[in-house]
Amino acid sequence: MTREQQIQVFLSSLHQNLCQLFAEQDGGKFEFDPWTRGPSGTGLAGRGITAILEDGQVLERAGVGFSDVSGTSLPPAATARNPHLAGRAYRAMGVSVVMHPRNPNVPTSHMNVRFLSAADTWWFGGGFDLTPYLVNEVDVVAWHQAAAQACAPFHPALYQHLRKTCDDYFYLPHRGEARGIGGIFYDDLNDATAQFGMSWERCFEFMQKVAAHYRDTYLQIVRARYQLRYGDREREYQLYRRGRYAEFNLVLDRGTLFGLQSGGRAESILMSMPPLVRWAYRSPDAELDARLMPYLTTLRGHDWRARAEV
Amino acid sequence: MTREQQIQVFLSSLHQNLCQLFAEQDGGKFEFDPWTRGPSGTGLAGRGITAILEDGQVLERAGVGFSDVSGTSLPPAATARNPHLAGRAYRAMGVSVVMHPRNPNVPTSHMNVRFLSAADTWWFGGGFDLTPYLVNEVDVVAWHQAAAQACAPFHPALYQHLRKTCDDYFYLPHRGEARGIGGIFYDDLNDATAQFGMSWERCFEFMQKVAAHYRDTYLQIVRARYQLRYGDREREYQLYRRGRYAEFNLVLDRGTLFGLQSGGRAESILMSMPPLVRWAYRSPDAELDARLMPYLTTLRGHDWRARAEV
Repeated sequence: MTREQQIQVFLSSLHQNLCQLFAEQDGGKFEFDPWTRGPSGTGLAGRGITAILEDGQVLERAGVGFSDVSGTSLPPAATARNPHLAGRAYRAMGVSVVMHPRNPNVPTSHMNVRFLSAADTWWFGGGFDLTPYLVNEVDVVAWHQAAAQACAPFHPALYQHLRKTCDDYFYLPHRGEARGIGGIFYDDLNDATAQFGMSWERCFEFMQKVAAHYRDTYLQIVRARYQLRYGDREREYQLYRRGRYAEFNLVLDRGTLFGLQSGGRAESILMSMPPLVRWAYRSPDAELDARLMPYLTTLRGHDWRARAEV
Repeated sequence: MTREQQIQVFLSSLHQNLCQLFAEQDGGKFEFDPWTRGPSGTGLAGRGITAILEDGQVLERAGVGFSDVSGTSLPPAATARNPHLAGRAYRAMGVSVVMHPRNPNVPTSHMNVRFLSAADTWWFGGGFDLTPYLVNEVDVVAWHQAAAQACAPFHPALYQHLRKTCDDYFYLPHRGEARGIGGIFYDDLNDATAQFGMSWERCFEFMQKVAAHYRDTYLQIVRARYQLRYGDREREYQLYRRGRYAEFNLVLDRGTLFGLQSGGRAESILMSMPPLVRWAYRSPDAELDARLMPYLTTLRGHDWRARAEV
């Protein structure tokens, strides 16, 4: 198999595996919507599968997307670090996951792994991050321990670097808040990356570790929290906080904006949006704010790897 | 009074008048939140009043904002047509209104009037547009008749020009849909505007007409529709369609994005957001889509001034 075939086989099977495991956890079913596009005037063509579970018992809305898109001309925006490749033919493959649970005690999660190749060059990208509403600090610790474990085999400083990239990226300047409690995020990882340069094989291994650690850790958090009791008060707070998630995705997320601007499928791109969102002039709950907000402001960048006091 | 004082007095009284009339219609109360800002590092300073009515009987969320902001350096983005003014001191004043009614039979409405001055130059901007969920065609006709009447005293071709500007602006390319059924929209109107150049006094008169026609026509539509019956089906459709409104404001609206990027007050800027929004992979109601969508697609640009068949 070529490298691209190996990636494609892995991503397809990851897509199926995630859908199966989270459908089992939920008790509901993912609807699979395969799509193809192009070739369009911009030379873009490809296919994908959007898998979506809506109105589940555990997951109020969950989207797992696979896409494999080729273009005749790499957009300049995709190649800031490699301007000489703009205009070259390229191929981009990836799996994206966003889970919006019903119970406000279960955090929203996001994971993405992707591979881009153009001419003789290739890059890996991806990561995962967690957005709690009612924070359980043990979950924050478990999440960052998993992130650190995914990175550990590759470089002793990799986790710290990618954790910071994640904190920097998932931030809402207009609110002065992080989107959540972070995780890891990387872009343009290849054998020429300063300090962390890894062979194609090692980068591919890392992609697999990222996906596996996300899956196992998030499932563990879901299982620990989805039966906790909550009332209208917690639900209302969750709906209000989901507004920040919507703001991040629509105002700031590069992938979402690039997808919408390049004529991608709006429903597939926006599978990341929360199912139900409330905007209000003021937070409905100062007490719940007082519990959550430190994690998104003063504790942003805190090293969570040490075990939490339970 | 100087010109700027005249504008300021008019906008302040418009702000109060709109709040009073719509509070009476609703039976609820606007909360007035006065704010000041700066002078910041960017030389921006000013004041405003955000008036907000939430959870009313008729209006689920209504925001009426007044702002009066001065800066030491006009941003290049604000002066595309007058690049020689970038970096000059400026003053911007305006009133913005967004009304999200509870009853899906009542359309959402938006109105804005603004005045910008820099060096010896000044511009007026503004307009109003309507976003129905369950369309009553008589409302569409009344809305465009009001828009045409506001424009008629100033130039025979003004309405047609501003109607088109409105259709072009309030459009979601990623959905291939208009945000609503339009209205009028203008930017950079002054005595040097080709074809429609008007004196400062005439431009100010037009500002007043725009505000008055919006107010009277929207109140008339609200009164005609707010007691119509609806059920879960219509409510669910409204929540789903409000997602498009949120997408437009957060992805596309220049005022919203410029405000958020320039460090404006997020809560005041985002008073335009709907109170409750649902995102779903598919429209929940093909039949209601079949009634609404033609107005946002094939009928976009239709001349609605002729009386509707009722």
